[in-house]
Amino acid sequence: MTIHQPFHGVFPYLVSPVDENGRILDTVLANLVEHLIAAGVHGLTPLGSTGEFAYLDWAQRQRIVEVVVEAAAGRVPVVAGVAATATAEAVRQAKAWEKLGVDGILAVMEAYFPIPPAGVVDYFTAVATAVPDLPIVIYTNPNFQKSDLTLDALAQLADVPNIQYLKDASSNTGRLLTLRNRVGDRLKLFSASAHIPLAVMLIGGVGWMAGPACLIPRQSVQLYELARAGRWEEAMGLQSQLWQINELFAKYALAACIKAGLQSQGFAVGDPIPPQAPLSPAARQEIEAFLSQL
Amino acid sequence: MTIHQPFHGVFPYLVSPVDENGRILDTVLANLVEHLIAAGVHGLTPLGSTGEFAYLDWAQRQRIVEVVVEAAAGRVPVVAGVAATATAEAVRQAKAWEKLGVDGILAVMEAYFPIPPAGVVDYFTAVATAVPDLPIVIYTNPNFQKSDLTLDALAQLADVPNIQYLKDASSNTGRLLTLRNRVGDRLKLFSASAHIPLAVMLIGGVGWMAGPACLIPRQSVQLYELARAGRWEEAMGLQSQLWQINELFAKYALAACIKAGLQSQGFAVGDPIPPQAPLSPAARQEIEAFLSQL
Amino acid sequence: MTIHQPFHGVFPYLVSPVDENGRILDTVLANLVEHLIAAGVHGLTPLGSTGEFAYLDWAQRQRIVEVVVEAAAGRVPVVAGVAATATAEAVRQAKAWEKLGVDGILAVMEAYFPIPPAGVVDYFTAVATAVPDLPIVIYTNPNFQKSDLTLDALAQLADVPNIQYLKDASSNTGRLLTLRNRVGDRLKLFSASAHIPLAVMLIGGVGWMAGPACLIPRQSVQLYELARAGRWEEAMGLQSQLWQINELFAKYALAACIKAGLQSQGFAVGDPIPPQAPLSPAARQEIEAFLSQL
Amino acid sequence: MTIHQPFHGVFPYLVSPVDENGRILDTVLANLVEHLIAAGVHGLTPLGSTGEFAYLDWAQRQRIVEVVVEAAAGRVPVVAGVAATATAEAVRQAKAWEKLGVDGILAVMEAYFPIPPAGVVDYFTAVATAVPDLPIVIYTNPNFQKSDLTLDALAQLADVPNIQYLKDASSNTGRLLTLRNRVGDRLKLFSASAHIPLAVMLIGGVGWMAGPACLIPRQSVQLYELARAGRWEEAMGLQSQLWQINELFAKYALAACIKAGLQSQGFAVGDPIPPQAPLSPAARQEIEAFLSQL
Repeated sequence: MTIHQPFHGVFPYLVSPVDENGRILDTVLANLVEHLIAAGVHGLTPLGSTGEFAYLDWAQRQRIVEVVVEAAAGRVPVVAGVAATATAEAVRQAKAWEKLGVDGILAVMEAYFPIPPAGVVDYFTAVATAVPDLPIVIYTNPNFQKSDLTLDALAQLADVPNIQYLKDASSNTGRLLTLRNRVGDRLKLFSASAHIPLAVMLIGGVGWMAGPACLIPRQSVQLYELARAGRWEEAMGLQSQLWQINELFAKYALAACIKAGLQSQGFAVGDPIPPQAPLSPAARQEIEAFLSQL
Repeated sequence: MTIHQPFHGVFPYLVSPVDENGRILDTVLANLVEHLIAAGVHGLTPLGSTGEFAYLDWAQRQRIVEVVVEAAAGRVPVVAGVAATATAEAVRQAKAWEKLGVDGILAVMEAYFPIPPAGVVDYFTAVATAVPDLPIVIYTNPNFQKSDLTLDALAQLADVPNIQYLKDASSNTGRLLTLRNRVGDRLKLFSASAHIPLAVMLIGGVGWMAGPACLIPRQSVQLYELARAGRWEEAMGLQSQLWQINELFAKYALAACIKAGLQSQGFAVGDPIPPQAPLSPAARQEIEAFLSQL
Repeated sequence: MTIHQPFHGVFPYLVSPVDENGRILDTVLANLVEHLIAAGVHGLTPLGSTGEFAYLDWAQRQRIVEVVVEAAAGRVPVVAGVAATATAEAVRQAKAWEKLGVDGILAVMEAYFPIPPAGVVDYFTAVATAVPDLPIVIYTNPNFQKSDLTLDALAQLADVPNIQYLKDASSNTGRLLTLRNRVGDRLKLFSASAHIPLAVMLIGGVGWMAGPACLIPRQSVQLYELARAGRWEEAMGLQSQLWQINELFAKYALAACIKAGLQSQGFAVGDPIPPQAPLSPAARQEIEAFLSQL
Repeated sequence: MTIHQPFHGVFPYLVSPVDENGRILDTVLANLVEHLIAAGVHGLTPLGSTGEFAYLDWAQRQRIVEVVVEAAAGRVPVVAGVAATATAEAVRQAKAWEKLGVDGILAVMEAYFPIPPAGVVDYFTAVATAVPDLPIVIYTNPNFQKSDLTLDALAQLADVPNIQYLKDASSNTGRLLTLRNRVGDRLKLFSASAHIPLAVMLIGGVGWMAGPACLIPRQSVQLYELARAGRWEEAMGLQSQLWQINELFAKYALAACIKAGLQSQGFAVGDPIPPQAPLSPAARQEIEAFLSQL
């Protein structure tokens, strides 16, 4: 772990390249890391939603973290996803990723039964406490999870010293402004794909963690720089253009779109993990048309 | 009808002041109109959600439009709400409001049974066709209605000549950017309370129609002017401060909050219409504390 | 009002026959009433969901109640729907229907803003108190309404002397058993279309109020009688066969299906009220095929 | 595997007794199996929802299946849960459980991203095809899963030779009748806790798989026998009484309730797996009061 804090800027969610037998495609993944760093991204996030963490077993997850940490070689921070239903399993992942040398943890809580806010707070607190030297990014996504984080729960979690960031995937910008008014910089905000990152930057966000940045890293970095320079209207012009890729994700499926796009850029990342289906040829052409027009 | 187009800026949703017997409090309403125009608002919207249209009968709605049109006296445009489940009833309202001299129609579709997109398009088209000389603002609110407008339906409606605006209350800014990329200026965007109006302005919105502007008209106009001047960061500072009132609306109930706030400002607008309950004294104090600190 | 209590058995929800100009088709409606009474139904319910109450104005609703009460002529009880968002409007309807001679009220609460349980209790209590001599059937439908009745609210309402029945349209039989265990016969249960009426009878229900009984009154009465006689397995054989009509309702739209079916039986009830669409010819054939096979 | 088909009757969902370090409490689990078989249950289902499968890792799941198969010793069929997001992982579980000697598979599909019906069909077909000699029970639970099975998907799956049962946890009895009318005995129905099992028996169900039968096995078997004997009204009397336990589950949390109840019956099954919380003392007393009154 090199000192890379505070985290800011564009963190692509990395896809998880696997072959048909479930083996991680190490070289493809390492090449993708190299490519993204060359494009100027500020950090890397393996094992986010786009990384299909929910479809990977322990050994696959571990290998992905290893490959990414090694390929990044300290040039940009690696913030790896920890995701589980059971607290003990999440803690185990966090400790293992720390040993592998990550610079931060993106903590996701999966749910089967509904868990009341106190249980949600316990879960995230346990993860953070297990790796006190690593900054934690709390991840909240009401679309894919059952345990949305209440504002009270977030305010409590902001008191845990190494819980320092929130990656919010709710699409509700107003809620982010409410949170910011309540906890200020105790939880710095990362935007997600569902939001217009620029709108989150305007309300004080520090960057975004999202799948599209895997496909359009240079443009994402440019958008970030325009926002940081206060050139909001130019930035919005670029944002409008880039937004089309989010429309394709909404129309088709997230991992399938990004894997198809990366294939068209020469990264043999394989198909999404079944029962997810690969894109149809027509959908693939839409992705390619978007990418080639940029 | 005076020529006030194109509509832009801050349009407060007017509360509907009624006494315990359901009589419209004409003078209170006229005074409120006077006060808001003096504060610089760009238009007035009676019979929006905040105006409790869903709790008013025909005669009450009619009287409200009459009073507002007369009090506004052509100084700012009056865009009055039309809301019904049945197409024929909506058409009847639109024609009646036109005769009373409104400058535009805010068209709301209420639903009991789910109506497929073709029926939704028919409803709004019928309203627009009935009053071809009035610009129409389509209103969409997935929280309070069952008939959310699909993007395809909105694109179709944008082809109706006098359907020129969309008031979107979804809180989903990304959807607005998608719509803008699809229909451009054929549907100009008004933001709602659920959104951060500033974020909608940044993506090309022309203003907002919302309840809070009833209570904080001067600050709302100032926010609009900062955005128009491209002073986005100053604007966001003001927006953050004003946003607290939206948090109170979310915590309590919309009409109850705005009526309580107006009472504290000296407008005897009465209580929300039962079975809606008036605010508790404690909630009322929170509203007053917010207003006095501005 | 004749003495018809306690209510029990099959109460068809009557469609509301209107022509294109919104005029009630009195003769058609009276003929339908005659036909249903001849088929043995135990009561009649104008202005339920199937009756498209949400699409009718005051004068239309009033005329429908008048025609039905007159045509029924005291032979079976008429339990007419009262439905509004505002408490005062609901009270006004209840008093008017009482004057027109109904035997009971089916009380529906429509909602625009969310109303907390205390407001819901107030609404229904106000309706009941306004017509203390009429038995009240509380209607709850979480699919079409926003104000689902909590168990605590129902238990409170069961204490109002003339609130004696619940028509539940939730499809959740377990909830009905819970309610029955809690309030016993203080709220007698009527099933709805969404339920299997036979299952509700088995847990102690007294009958059903539903649209299908408009189309298949004789078979509905037969099902009721088999259940009353404890011939549950025979009853289930019949229920399975009749259930197909509910599948058609779910596939298409409720009012459109029943109006199409009645047309095929010789009742010129007109089309559903726009923006609801009439059935396609193919869907109409499915309804006719079901009816002719019985 | 002994020949125990066709499956019918009462299959308790077994809790998963684990200690604080995540070790399976073999003896407690074996004792529970012995107790349930002595009480007359017709089968055993480890790794259902009640069994907290979503909170267990591979080794824990495997050990549970081993212990249950060994303790059951062929006296009643063991139908073990297979649950995963990824198809390959589900297949791996099914094959492993087959080797351990189970008599059938309860196949659950977990979801993170939404999976279209074709993917859902692929998932279940892959599991069934992997263990062609084992009968498969498809599990559908729209409350805890994102991939509800459409009727078309179920009809397709009914064509797979060893997919022979459906365990439905939707609470929607009407949907079950629709399914039965469509696929008949090609998919035999098991009820769940959310349903009134008796209502499902009446429409042709063959039994139920549910957590409560862990706590009240004798009464569950008695209910089943009354239904089989056509003594529906007596059965409903018993059902009403037993239903209170479902109300407690809805009020508190499923696994916590059943584990607390079993502890009070002398089975030291431990607490639910964190972040699930154990019952409060007051809730525990409610469970005990219910059990002692039987």
